[in-house]
Amino acid sequence: MVRRRSVGDRRPQEEERSANSSARARFSRRDLPEVPTGWTSADSSRTPPPPRSVVSRCVIEAVTPQVDGGRFPVKAIVGDTVKVEADIFMDGHAVVACDLWFRQSMRGPRNAPVPRTPLDRPEHWSAIAMRPLGNDRWEGHFVVTNLGEYRFVITATEDRFATWRRDVMLRIEACQQLDADLAEGLVLLENLASRAEGADSQMLVSAARALASISSADQGELSRRVVEILTENLNTCARRYVYDGDATCTPEFPVVVDPAYAQFSSWYELFPRSTSPDPRRPGTFRDVIDWLPYIAGMGFDVLYLPPIHPIGLTNRKGRDGVTTAGSKDPGSPWAIGSAAGGHTAVHPELGTIEDFDRLVTEAQHHGIAVALDMAWQASPDHPWVREHPDWFQRRPDGTIRHAENPPKHYEDIYPIDFATSSWRELWIALLMVTEYWIDHGVSIFRVDNPHTKPFRFWEWLIGAVKETHPEVIFLSEAFTRPKVMKYLAKLGFSQSYTYFTWRTTKWELESYLTELTQPDVIDYFRPNFWPNTPDILPEHLQIGGRPTFMARLVLAATLSSNYGIYGPAFELGECLPRSAGSEEYLGSEKYIVRTWNLHDPRSLAPFIGQVNRIRRENPALAQMRTLRLHKVDNEQLIVYSKTAGSNVIVVVVNLDFRYRQSGWVDLDIAALGLAPDARYTMHDLLTGTKYPWQGQRNFVMLDPELPAHIFRLERDPRDA
Amino acid sequence: MVRRRSVGDRRPQEEERSANSSARARFSRRDLPEVPTGWTSADSSRTPPPPRSVVSRCVIEAVTPQVDGGRFPVKAIVGDTVKVEADIFMDGHAVVACDLWFRQSMRGPRNAPVPRTPLDRPEHWSAIAMRPLGNDRWEGHFVVTNLGEYRFVITATEDRFATWRRDVMLRIEACQQLDADLAEGLVLLENLASRAEGADSQMLVSAARALASISSADQGELSRRVVEILTENLNTCARRYVYDGDATCTPEFPVVVDPAYAQFSSWYELFPRSTSPDPRRPGTFRDVIDWLPYIAGMGFDVLYLPPIHPIGLTNRKGRDGVTTAGSKDPGSPWAIGSAAGGHTAVHPELGTIEDFDRLVTEAQHHGIAVALDMAWQASPDHPWVREHPDWFQRRPDGTIRHAENPPKHYEDIYPIDFATSSWRELWIALLMVTEYWIDHGVSIFRVDNPHTKPFRFWEWLIGAVKETHPEVIFLSEAFTRPKVMKYLAKLGFSQSYTYFTWRTTKWELESYLTELTQPDVIDYFRPNFWPNTPDILPEHLQIGGRPTFMARLVLAATLSSNYGIYGPAFELGECLPRSAGSEEYLGSEKYIVRTWNLHDPRSLAPFIGQVNRIRRENPALAQMRTLRLHKVDNEQLIVYSKTAGSNVIVVVVNLDFRYRQSGWVDLDIAALGLAPDARYTMHDLLTGTKYPWQGQRNFVMLDPELPAHIFRLERDPRDA
Repeated sequence: MVRRRSVGDRRPQEEERSANSSARARFSRRDLPEVPTGWTSADSSRTPPPPRSVVSRCVIEAVTPQVDGGRFPVKAIVGDTVKVEADIFMDGHAVVACDLWFRQSMRGPRNAPVPRTPLDRPEHWSAIAMRPLGNDRWEGHFVVTNLGEYRFVITATEDRFATWRRDVMLRIEACQQLDADLAEGLVLLENLASRAEGADSQMLVSAARALASISSADQGELSRRVVEILTENLNTCARRYVYDGDATCTPEFPVVVDPAYAQFSSWYELFPRSTSPDPRRPGTFRDVIDWLPYIAGMGFDVLYLPPIHPIGLTNRKGRDGVTTAGSKDPGSPWAIGSAAGGHTAVHPELGTIEDFDRLVTEAQHHGIAVALDMAWQASPDHPWVREHPDWFQRRPDGTIRHAENPPKHYEDIYPIDFATSSWRELWIALLMVTEYWIDHGVSIFRVDNPHTKPFRFWEWLIGAVKETHPEVIFLSEAFTRPKVMKYLAKLGFSQSYTYFTWRTTKWELESYLTELTQPDVIDYFRPNFWPNTPDILPEHLQIGGRPTFMARLVLAATLSSNYGIYGPAFELGECLPRSAGSEEYLGSEKYIVRTWNLHDPRSLAPFIGQVNRIRRENPALAQMRTLRLHKVDNEQLIVYSKTAGSNVIVVVVNLDFRYRQSGWVDLDIAALGLAPDARYTMHDLLTGTKYPWQGQRNFVMLDPELPAHIFRLERDPRDA
Repeated sequence: MVRRRSVGDRRPQEEERSANSSARARFSRRDLPEVPTGWTSADSSRTPPPPRSVVSRCVIEAVTPQVDGGRFPVKAIVGDTVKVEADIFMDGHAVVACDLWFRQSMRGPRNAPVPRTPLDRPEHWSAIAMRPLGNDRWEGHFVVTNLGEYRFVITATEDRFATWRRDVMLRIEACQQLDADLAEGLVLLENLASRAEGADSQMLVSAARALASISSADQGELSRRVVEILTENLNTCARRYVYDGDATCTPEFPVVVDPAYAQFSSWYELFPRSTSPDPRRPGTFRDVIDWLPYIAGMGFDVLYLPPIHPIGLTNRKGRDGVTTAGSKDPGSPWAIGSAAGGHTAVHPELGTIEDFDRLVTEAQHHGIAVALDMAWQASPDHPWVREHPDWFQRRPDGTIRHAENPPKHYEDIYPIDFATSSWRELWIALLMVTEYWIDHGVSIFRVDNPHTKPFRFWEWLIGAVKETHPEVIFLSEAFTRPKVMKYLAKLGFSQSYTYFTWRTTKWELESYLTELTQPDVIDYFRPNFWPNTPDILPEHLQIGGRPTFMARLVLAATLSSNYGIYGPAFELGECLPRSAGSEEYLGSEKYIVRTWNLHDPRSLAPFIGQVNRIRRENPALAQMRTLRLHKVDNEQLIVYSKTAGSNVIVVVVNLDFRYRQSGWVDLDIAALGLAPDARYTMHDLLTGTKYPWQGQRNFVMLDPELPAHIFRLERDPRDA
């Protein structure tokens, strides 16, 4: 632990300024600032340092990982090692000492006006001495053991003792005189001792005495004694008191530590009202409970439900989204609110809140977390329309504008006016709704269209929730422009839908995955890949048949560590669009109740179960940082790998749903830790087959019937 | 010009907060901040906006050009167009309005505590409406017409009128009802009119009335009338009042505008004491004046002199740097200061200050600027040692430590202690010295070893000088680690020595030039390439002979827009090192007086003159931004181009000093603006020869005797 620095004497500013006043008067318009420009202290209210030094001469630049200079947090999960690097240097030839400090953030607003820098309050922080990597790059790392927000800071200062020590050694090697150096060393040691405590002080005092007592005309003898005195222990001890009046300190860099499921989760989306075994009545929460073994059997760990609240009647949408509903049409679950209640109510046809609680509990027993849809909008019948008319934007004629994206109209939905003068009241109400569902056991929210609500609202809401519930995560469903998608991730969304659904060719997939795994994107953006959603039945699923479903599932589940499917539409191969060229499902569950035959022999459920089991059993697939693309001489094949320690997974996918495809894979086996001619086994975890491979170039062949290999690379124990 | 926004009504904070107090009490620990986190206003003291909007919803990111978020200035020269881009977006589907504001900085400290944002004080700023490039990227540009510092800022706000207009047009195209829209448009126009003045107000009021008066049941007729009213003039007028209560504003981004010679200069370094035509006496300023036609004849425009001050006697270095000088040894010019004076004095053997003034004037007549060496250090005989003993660091025994880089010692030099408690007095004294020489006509300083002085000192000194003398530029001679070199450039050095001297192979040159022309390096770092200096006689010049001298000159003079040579050692082919493996010149002018025969028939002076003339006549060579590398199938050949409008220069250099080299050049002619099969002429400006080329692949061959082509690409007038 680094001890507190001593304050030392301070001369009044005024005394120093009176010197050379005539010259200063001439140059008054270039008056020196109290603290020369560029003082890089996190605490701008600090008084200038004692006159020992002008200003900290160390520079700290290019800190990683960071997002926008610390404006947004970096993301990690519990147990991660945060590896911090920075460029750190000063003028001249002195040695610098650099420390990485970290702490768990205290409760309270993130941007507290007076951050406590480690140099002011070292007791709040843990410190790690950083080590040089070369070329002025330094590194340090720490483990984030708890959920919640951490902060890290880097400090750097001139290490006068280490500089002296290095110079003494250089002179000894060059057989030069040491007398002057000894006197300087003595002064440094005495200074250190005066600021040290206890055993440290004693060690430093002893070293000083030993140095002072060296009296030998023989330079060789002198050198030998000096080397004896400068032990590793002494160096370590001196290092503890390196901060003496000046230092450069970065701002705080936040790190948000999420639970493991923020980074590794397998999502299954279904419409509860379509889970009934009886076509004469819609499904309920109790029916969903009966589905749990099926969902768990496929290996999913998140069950995501579209909005479970009462559905409005006014302007209710009918089958396939027609503007006028029939009397039996259940309406879109996103048209939230009726006389039966709003966002804290449960649709009476789904059951009671107790039924919901039981679903959450039962799901937990199956290792499944229930995720809810967070959709901040209201049907015209929502209680808020009557109770909080000012929460909705009105036209000049006083009517409320329904949601629209001109020329498209969504007559069954009123958008909430986040710019209302009652915004504080509104925001708190939405936070209270969120807390209500958290109290009912929900830790995961899939957020509907966050890009149509103010960014500052989300940053505040997510931050407020995670302060008291750091285990809660938020998935952003923002199919919008790329920079908006990324910004939402920066400001706090734990996971994000992506363009994966429309990335189908090898080049598209490779470019997109390259983009997603670059720093700093990979430090704040966690993709969640969905081959289909209730809004999106992509063209390739319409025409590609079973082979495409299988390929897209493997791609989603292995390229990304978070993925999901909308079922049972997916595993049952639902592929009819509403009309030619549309991406809407025909007879979409958004507007009608469906009944599904889960036991259809053609169901992909067993295959999905296999893939999810492989994901669970191979930690390489639980992250994305190590994703690497490999070459293969066939544009219809894509090859990529992920690693976690000795667990190496290599995936090959045939992107052609019609034909067998084959080719020569050029595996970057050096990057995978193998010798150029190594022999190893490619164990296909989907079939159990083991293929002997050697070196970089090996042959693959995939038929549409089983269009993917998920290989585990198993080293030959004979090949080191 | 954008008019001032109106302030509007403000409700007291307290009123708003009392609403819903019980709920708020429950959530008090997540109290909403007065201004939600992330308020991106440059003026953090601004009061929150009127309740019309929550907070500005626009985001401005990824601003270019910028250095470290605006912490350091971007560099430009007079007459440059600064092209600003940024990612700008907001939530939802509204249209944003973005403006680029710029102003010349006012005199005063750079980081004034309360910057005047353009939204507070639009009258201080000029505004340019930015235009969208697509994918949320916006651009704007302005011309920096004057020397000195400029600032630019980007503001963005929701453009409600433009949003309304776009939506109306979309509805018209979709043949939808417009009634509600008309009412909204009326409100918007009335709001705009209330904030407008004069003719603008009238135009907006008229449009409002016209809109209000539309009464037609026929939607077609209605649409037609609306389109009539929404003229381009109306849109432009409305745009002027787009700022109405909320906006996002970036911090100020500084731009330092230097004179043209900061970016394009050809330097000639000589030792004045070696310019005597008479070997019996050392040279003087008057002798240097006699050299001016020679220097101007070679085409140089900067004459750089090592320190011209009195030289100390104590520990004076002798020939080839030996520690003890003989009685006749003149000493190193960098051991500044004797009884005859210090940094504001002239070495008596060189002449008087009047002689110096005359040299500066005469040089001007030859189109040459005199550059001085700025070396903040002192010989033991410097007056400051006696007058300001506290400006030098002392050992515990009271003696001053001479300069050293252990184990190397520089006994003839005392380093100045920039960390002295008298640092303010010291810094001002050094500024006064600088001003003294500026008053004597010096606008260019080559700074000796800036990396051994505190960064904050340079940032202050350069900033202080350029506030009143924006035409002054500083060249950093910091042969040190790469990040330190770059940092010095960031903080203000106008030009920098580089590693060019040790980049000799094709791969080394190409990598290095790629590094130097990346953003943001190219926005703050101006290289100055030197094939040799008094400290550096690189090995290739020792062994390579005339071909190497010629090749290195062409590389320096065409790769970089700033370059220099140390002469006459260079043009006279001086190539003997002090000892094997050394980069020091034998009989270095640093320690002895030399006499040179400028009329040596083997002198490269005519060749250098040619190259400098080519530089002056081809504007492509006056910058580095357009440097492009081209392929050639021979590792001994390097090919690159630069362009400025229609001026296209392509350089080919043979890096092999022994043998003829040839190969096929693969010119990226699309990048040079030519069709794939275009015919064009490569006019070798060194020989006058014209070669007909076609398309991408063409043959080149170079002998060591003339190891470079400097081609001007001349299009065939028949090929469009």
